[in-house]
Parts: sequence; structure tokens; C-alpha cells
Amino acid sequence: MSQSLRELAKRRGLFFISQGSYGGSAGFYTFGPVGNEVKNNIVEEWRDVFVRGLGNMEIDAPTVMKEDVFQASGHVDTFDDMILECPNCGRSHRGDHLVEDETELEEAEGLPTEKIEELVEENDIGCPSCGEALAGVEVSEFNLMFDTDIGPGDSETGYLRPETAQGIFVDFPRLKQYARNQLPFGVAQVGRGYRNEISPRGGLSRVREFTMAELEQFILEGQKPELSEVEDVTLRILSREMQENGETPADMTPVEAVEDGVVESEWIAYFLGRAQTFYERIGIHPGRLRFRQHQADELSHYASDCWDAETDVGSEGRDWLEVTGFAFRGCYDLKKHHEHSESDYTVFREFDEPREVEEISVDPDMSWLGPELGDGAEKAVERLQELAESEPERFEKQSSVEIENGSGTMGIPVDKTGFSRETVEKNGEHVLPQVVEPSFGIGRLVYSVLTHSLDTDEVDGEERTLLRLPSEVAPADVAVLPLMDRDGLTDRAREVASTLRNKGLEVRFDSSGSIGRRYRRMDEIGVPLCVTVDYGTLGEEEETEKNTVTLRDRDTTEQERTDISELADRLA
Amino acid sequence: MSQSLRELAKRRGLFFISQGSYGGSAGFYTFGPVGNEVKNNIVEEWRDVFVRGLGNMEIDAPTVMKEDVFQASGHVDTFDDMILECPNCGRSHRGDHLVEDETELEEAEGLPTEKIEELVEENDIGCPSCGEALAGVEVSEFNLMFDTDIGPGDSETGYLRPETAQGIFVDFPRLKQYARNQLPFGVAQVGRGYRNEISPRGGLSRVREFTMAELEQFILEGQKPELSEVEDVTLRILSREMQENGETPADMTPVEAVEDGVVESEWIAYFLGRAQTFYERIGIHPGRLRFRQHQADELSHYASDCWDAETDVGSEGRDWLEVTGFAFRGCYDLKKHHEHSESDYTVFREFDEPREVEEISVDPDMSWLGPELGDGAEKAVERLQELAESEPERFEKQSSVEIENGSGTMGIPVDKTGFSRETVEKNGEHVLPQVVEPSFGIGRLVYSVLTHSLDTDEVDGEERTLLRLPSEVAPADVAVLPLMDRDGLTDRAREVASTLRNKGLEVRFDSSGSIGRRYRRMDEIGVPLCVTVDYGTLGEEEETEKNTVTLRDRDTTEQERTDISELADRLA
Repeated sequence: MSQSLRELAKRRGLFFISQGSYGGSAGFYTFGPVGNEVKNNIVEEWRDVFVRGLGNMEIDAPTVMKEDVFQASGHVDTFDDMILECPNCGRSHRGDHLVEDETELEEAEGLPTEKIEELVEENDIGCPSCGEALAGVEVSEFNLMFDTDIGPGDSETGYLRPETAQGIFVDFPRLKQYARNQLPFGVAQVGRGYRNEISPRGGLSRVREFTMAELEQFILEGQKPELSEVEDVTLRILSREMQENGETPADMTPVEAVEDGVVESEWIAYFLGRAQTFYERIGIHPGRLRFRQHQADELSHYASDCWDAETDVGSEGRDWLEVTGFAFRGCYDLKKHHEHSESDYTVFREFDEPREVEEISVDPDMSWLGPELGDGAEKAVERLQELAESEPERFEKQSSVEIENGSGTMGIPVDKTGFSRETVEKNGEHVLPQVVEPSFGIGRLVYSVLTHSLDTDEVDGEERTLLRLPSEVAPADVAVLPLMDRDGLTDRAREVASTLRNKGLEVRFDSSGSIGRRYRRMDEIGVPLCVTVDYGTLGEEEETEKNTVTLRDRDTTEQERTDISELADRLA
Repeated sequence: MSQSLRELAKRRGLFFISQGSYGGSAGFYTFGPVGNEVKNNIVEEWRDVFVRGLGNMEIDAPTVMKEDVFQASGHVDTFDDMILECPNCGRSHRGDHLVEDETELEEAEGLPTEKIEELVEENDIGCPSCGEALAGVEVSEFNLMFDTDIGPGDSETGYLRPETAQGIFVDFPRLKQYARNQLPFGVAQVGRGYRNEISPRGGLSRVREFTMAELEQFILEGQKPELSEVEDVTLRILSREMQENGETPADMTPVEAVEDGVVESEWIAYFLGRAQTFYERIGIHPGRLRFRQHQADELSHYASDCWDAETDVGSEGRDWLEVTGFAFRGCYDLKKHHEHSESDYTVFREFDEPREVEEISVDPDMSWLGPELGDGAEKAVERLQELAESEPERFEKQSSVEIENGSGTMGIPVDKTGFSRETVEKNGEHVLPQVVEPSFGIGRLVYSVLTHSLDTDEVDGEERTLLRLPSEVAPADVAVLPLMDRDGLTDRAREVASTLRNKGLEVRFDSSGSIGRRYRRMDEIGVPLCVTVDYGTLGEEEETEKNTVTLRDRDTTEQERTDISELADRLA
């Protein structure tokens, strides 16, 4: 993060490390009054595009969830980072970051722990805190979920969710009902996510608690999005192949990306297009934005393809920050919950016309199987069912079938298995939907927007700092300022502010300090317009018949007088 | 919760126990698509009244905070419930609830654990789960904060915040700067709070994770709110005295409540007034709302006075649910953080005019004290300072003062103490602000609003269920429905929906099923108006020149035709 943004953030209440009185809490930020408004505005714009704009549902699930859910989702087993503890000072470090910082390797996250140990040794990497040589130190896996105990005594383990997504997936059996089983449909969620980072970095780029906005788009294989809706959008694309060839990003539309085979999933291409529009609306600089495809070893355990939207948050286009992941999760998550729980995560897909389908089943004669097999009977039934599906011919060509039975094999007469193979007419089938997920990091977007908006220029011979925020995300639409705090100007200004508020505008009011200083303050927090109430407003200036105010533009600092009766309509 | 609300909640996606596929997670709810909209709307109304309406700031602090903070705030030591574990089945129960359920006692929360043990024994209370007699079982304190570990290895304990308030208090030294040290000012926060309830109850009334909206109003002693702003509001008041006398609530305005001495703090009276307006706007039934003062033994550890807004969520006015606490926290929290941390939580309060202030200080001669006392010198200096402030005359009337010194006392010559007493002129002083806190439980408000809105009537000889939600909190302003899904009606209806959306209206669209069934669906989720697009809209009916739609009112089911060109303006 740039020094100037860091200072501005503190001075003007954008964001700051939380609990500073107690030394701060690494990786935990508080959004101050101004930062919180920007953040809330970005969330509302997101809802406009991805919830209301696409006719999607939004839900609000808990942040603390049961262990069962994350066992099923794979997070308990695989949501890890590589950790390495310095034997001298006891500080913990991320193995992949150590290697990336100290070698030519740009991406070490996908490497196995043994490889990291090797690289640490080969490159004589030392502890960043105390300098101790780390060769020979074990690299292990550290689970990034915060855990806690739910309830007293007979408590069960719970986790702070690492993504809002699982709150949607796990209750899909209910959500599909609200969508009346009609796919495609999308379910969104905005809320907290948590990652117990080994070593949080400065600024909002790697934190332990963050706000996410996620959309889970449920589709059936073959269903297509309306790519024509995003045909006018241009994306800067950096595919896996382009990265391997050392190429620079190429500009193309979502349709071109699909037609040229650069983006495989039409749904991902569609969401890249929607996101591009969203980014521009909130003030991400198009020239400092790119869509980069994951390398195979970067992919999360649930994703078969993934694109990141990355913003340039450095000064030389070298520091790219992931602000959104567009993942093709397939039916990974729903399949896991379908298998791990008792509920049905499928939807019924009607065929275009009824189809002849072959049904194979067994219905064993338990009065024979029971006495014959005792406790093993139940397992034998399962094996018969499996065998019938995989090798039905064995039931048809022989008089008995052999199945494994603990120590050996045993033959079961086919006429005791109740084997049948028949052709039936079906109108459809139960299938697990696939999921395409755009997942936005709201804090990182705030950070990117502020970085891209922060500017300095010279006004009246003095350097001025300003945030060139679009009015959609600015902490207010307009500031109302009395020229001075006397002669009834303040009261008149309050009336003006109140009138504008009633028109639905977000209004700031400030009456303390010189008017120049107040302009600078509003520039620094990105308020696009200032309305100054002066003696002309009171109708006391003789040369004018009208009651006017000064309207000042943040970006140009140009001022013009406008009649107060026209003000509200003009701003609205 | 009523059976009909429970069923409606499931059927229409208001809310449901989360993670139902894994048996559900007690005390953790998911707001479905409709419930989430109602919830978000209530939050926005709250911001309208308590943030924007009062010119307050809003921040967003982490939900996981360091142990230091909750050590200081008193939550580690005192945020407990009484727990009692059944020796037979191992289930845990809340001691006070057991006693309340099984005896005449209405409020047992404030009793000591020994008293609960006595009452369990005297009343032969058995385990609610298995029936085992609980006499003789120990009642202990169970801390209600969820804990977790922050970071790996050298990790520190963190807690999920039990209230958003501490995130505001702990960073007050920074927040006062954003308010330029001008009090009064208010800081709001909307976000999650957590309580690891021993036995969560059904519905949204006692959950383990919830959304709160809190306002911390910082004031200096003597500063007054503008009570005139709430002079037209009527409150149903049930004071501590009225409860003791078995009286029913009395109607009065905030001004009357203060003048009659019923509500001591003018700030609390002011916020009761603001809240009353808010409750009415979101659809709380005024006749099912009251403000009840806490009994002395109900008060939280930080509060010196507290009023609860309670809503009647039962069927006979017997089941009152706390939806808001209005607590006078004094300077409790800021003082604790001021003492426990290194930061300054005071603000400078200017006197109306400069005052003569007596300053007493010591400045001991360490070259004498050091050799004389060795390691005890530092403590001796502290004691001298205390003594000088409490009994300055001892420094003035004697040539030596005696202080305690480990085992005995020792005399120190006054001329070695550097004692001075002087009168200086001061412009002001550093003081700790006081805090008045209205704290709203958003989930409980959603629950109350739904309970008060749920109604049944008879339409066309059939029973109809509807939510009589105010348009401010309804999940949509209007539903647009094609009469049938054919003859271009659906496309025309989509155009109408799109036009209305562009006017800023929240619009639902539904084209599946009979029109009657769709009306019922919209009634059940509380959409106030339906627009039906039919053949008249297409201009195909000969008897009319105009293109009209049907506008149907949820509450009356009355329908009228209105010209499509006037529709948007009429609804907006």
C-alpha cells in the first residue's frame, strides 16, 4: 500500500488496523466512517449488478458452521497453507512465500511440502524475523479455518466459514424449492469470510477477516447464458497459455473469448463481462485490471477452471491483486453434500421427449440370503446391486453369480437375486447441477478503488490530495457548506442540506474551519460536489435578483453559481 | 413461534434452521431470499433513522477481537450464564431457566448460583431431557463468548464479539479525531454478534449468531438531546416502580417521561422516542410494544440504567420479547480501556470561562530517595503522589511525612518530596465521555414484524394467508404478472417490469401457475401490489382506447385498471 494512501486512510477514517490501543490485531481491519460508506456503496452496486440485475436470490447464512459441513466440502482436509516455524525465534512463516521472496520462483503455492523444504535448503533461506538458517526445518500443513466450540459440555466443533458459498450449497435442497426446481438460478450472499492467515500482510490485501460477495450460479449441463447481453464489453485476458508463452494480455469481448477457445465456459465468460461493467462503475481503472486464468497447480480443491480478476495496486504494474475469482466448481460441492448427508441435492431434469431407459435392479430373496449369510447379508445385497449394474451379463449367462464374501467368494443362484433388466419410458432424470461461482473480495475492491482514485494535483500553488471516486461509491453525493459560521449562513445551509436529503441525496454538512480547508477535506474523502451557502444565497447581494449558491466540482475545482430553486433537481 | 409462521417461514423462504441436511445447527438460522430482503430493508430503515437521520457515523469493525479487549470490558469475567449438567444424560441446562420454568419465579437471571442450587433442591426440579432429579448438582458459570485461536503456533486467544459495541469503544481514540473532538457524537455499527447459548430456544428469539444494529452515543455530562424532536411521540412505559406495584404500562411522551421522573436520562427518553417512530415504520404493532425498565438485578455489568423495548410475540400478550436495549453505560467502557491500554480515551472539555484550578504535585529528589529506598523508591513516589492529593496538609504542617514501606512505615523529609500546591488558570479539562446505547436485535425485529404482519382472511370462500408488511420492509414494492404465459403477455410484462425497475422500484416477476395462485404467493410474502398484464395491456380489447393493466391491492384484494403510461409515476 502506498504511503500516501496509508496516511490518508488514517487521517480521514477510511480504514485502520483494529484495536490499536492494544497494539493492533494483525490481519483485522476496521473500516472507519468514510471507508464504511465506500464499502457499503460498493456492496450495493454489486447487488445491483449481480442480484437485482440478474434476478437472483440473496440469502444470509451463519458465519459459524458445523464440522460436518466442512468435512464434506473438503476444507477440513485440504484448506491448508504450508507453515514453517523458526527454531530460534519461534515465529511462523508461510513456506511458499519464503520461497517466492527468496528465489526466482513466482508461484510456489502449489508445490508439495518436501519441495519447499528442498528449496529452503538449496537457497540457504533464513528466518525473515531473526535470520536463523531454516535448512532442515520441517514444513507442515496448517489449516486456515478458525475453529471454536459450539455449546457447552457436550460441545461440537464449529468453524468460521472460509467462504460464504458453503452456506448456500449446504441448504441447496431448500433453495431449489424456492426456485421451484427451475434451473438455471443464482443464489448470492454478502457477508464475512475468515482465513487464519499464518502471516497477514500489511493493508487490506491479506487479512484474516473480510467481507465477500459471492454468487453461486446453478446450471444444468448444456444450459447457456445470454452472452449477447455482454457483447459490448472488452476484457483484458491473460490465459494460461499466454502466461506460459510469456505473452501480454489481449483485449477481446466475452463472445470472442469463447469463440477463440480462450475461455472454455460460456458462463465464466458471461460473468467476466458483467464484472467488467461492475468494476468500471465502482471506479476500477480499466487499464489497471486484467483477467488471469489459474495455472493448473493454483486451482483450489473444488475448481476445475478458474479465472482471477486482478487489479494493479502497485505503482509500476507489477503488483497484481486478486479481487475476484471466477471458478467453475462443477458439481463438486453438491455431490459432496449429497454423499455426506441424508438429503437430496439433485434436481429433476425433464427430457425434451420421453426416453427409453434401461433399468437394472436386484431384489434378493432374503429368506434364502439371510440364513445363508447371517450378518453378511446386507453387504451381499450391496455387492449384488453393484455387480448387476457393472456386469449384468453375469446374471444372464450363468445360473449363479460369485461375490466376495469376507475371506473368500461365494456363489449365489441367480434366481435368488431377483435380477431384472427392463426398458422403461422416462420423462427425465435426477441430476446434480453444476456451479459457476464469481466470488468478490469487497475489502480488496475498496482498496483497489481507493488506490486507483487517489490523486494529487496543484491548486492555487499548493499540492492537493483528492479521491476521484465515482459518485456511485463516494461517501456522499454532495457536501453543503456555509461560507462562514455566522450571519445565519449556517442555518440557511442546514435548510439546504435538509432539502437535498429529502430528495434522496446523501449529504455531508460541515461548518467548521475556513472554506478552503473544508473543500480540501471533501476532496480527500472524494465527495464529488460542494454547495457553498454564502451571502448571495441570503439574497443580500444587490447585483443579483436571485438567491444562488456556489457549486464546486471536486475534479476541476471549477465553481459556478446556480439558483437555489434549481439546485435539488440539478443534482438529482 | 406460531405454527403458521413456522410453516410460512419454511414454505416461502423467510428463515430456517441452518444446515438442515446435517441435522441442523441449534441456534443458527439462515435467512432465505424473502427473509433476507425484509432483514436488509429493516437495516436500511434503521440507518435512515439512527445514522443518516441523526448525522451519525457508521463503522465496520472485526467480529473476532483480541482477549485483551474483553478482559478490559469485563466480558471474560462476567459474561456468563448459570449452567447445570445432568449427571444422567449429560445434557446442559441454564440454571435460571430451569427455575423460571418450574417455579413461580419470573426472573431468576440475577440470582447467585447457590440460590439456584437451593431452588432446584427445594422444588425437586428434574432434568427436562431425561427426568433425572437435579438436586445436589453443582450450578456453575459458563462464559457465553465463542473463543478461537488467532494465528498459528504462538497463537493468541480471540473471541467472537458478544456485541458490536466494543469494536467502537476500543478505537474511540481514533474515532474522536474523526469527530474533531466535538461531543456529542454518535457512532453506529451493524453486524454480527455471538452468544454461545447453553440451550438455544426455537425460532429467532434465542440464537447463537445474530445481526445487531448498535448506536453508541458519546456525550459529556450535562449535554442534552433535542427532546422537542420527539415531542409528538407516545410511548407505552413500564417503569421499575410500576412493575413492583403490579401496574400496567402507561402512555406518555418522552418529555412527560422525563418531567415526571419516570425516565431519568433525557438521552434514553430521546432514543425511546426515535425508536418508537422506527418501530412503527417497519410494521411493529404499536399496541404490541412496550418499554420496560430493567430491575436492578437484571442490569448488565456495564449498565447503570436500562430500558428494553419489548414486543408481544405470543397470542395473548404474555410472551414479551426484548428487541432493543437502551442502556446508560456511563463512562464504564471507555474508563476500562483507558486504564487497561496505553491510549487516551478522554476528550478535552473547554470550560465556559477559564477557571482557577488548584494543582498539587510532588517531584521527589531521587538522588536522596534512590539510595535510601533502593527497589522500593518507585512505589514510594506513587504513594507520595497519592498522599499529596488526599492529604496535602500533611506536607504543609510537618517537616516530614510518613509513608508505608513494605513491612513498616518510614518518614521522608518534606523538602525531599518536591511538594507543591499552586493555583493555575485552566481553559478546560480532560474527561471521559459517557455513553448511551440503543442496541437493536435485527433478527428479533424481523421475527416481531413477521408475527405482527401475519394474518389470514377469506377470499372467494377460501382462507388466505398474507403478510401485511409496510412497503418499506416488504421484499418488493410490486409484482408484475402476465395473466397467462402466452400470446406475448410475458414479454410485455417483462417490459413493464423493466420500466418500473428503472424508476427505482423493487419488482418481482412471476409467470408460472394460475394468476390466482400467483396472487396468493405474493400475498404470502407481503408484496403490497400486483400489476397484471393482460389483453387490455396489449391494446387488443376493442372497448378500450387505452392500454391498461390491473393493479391489485394485497390488503383489500381490490382491483382497478390503470393506464400503463401512468403506472410508473403512480407507483413511485
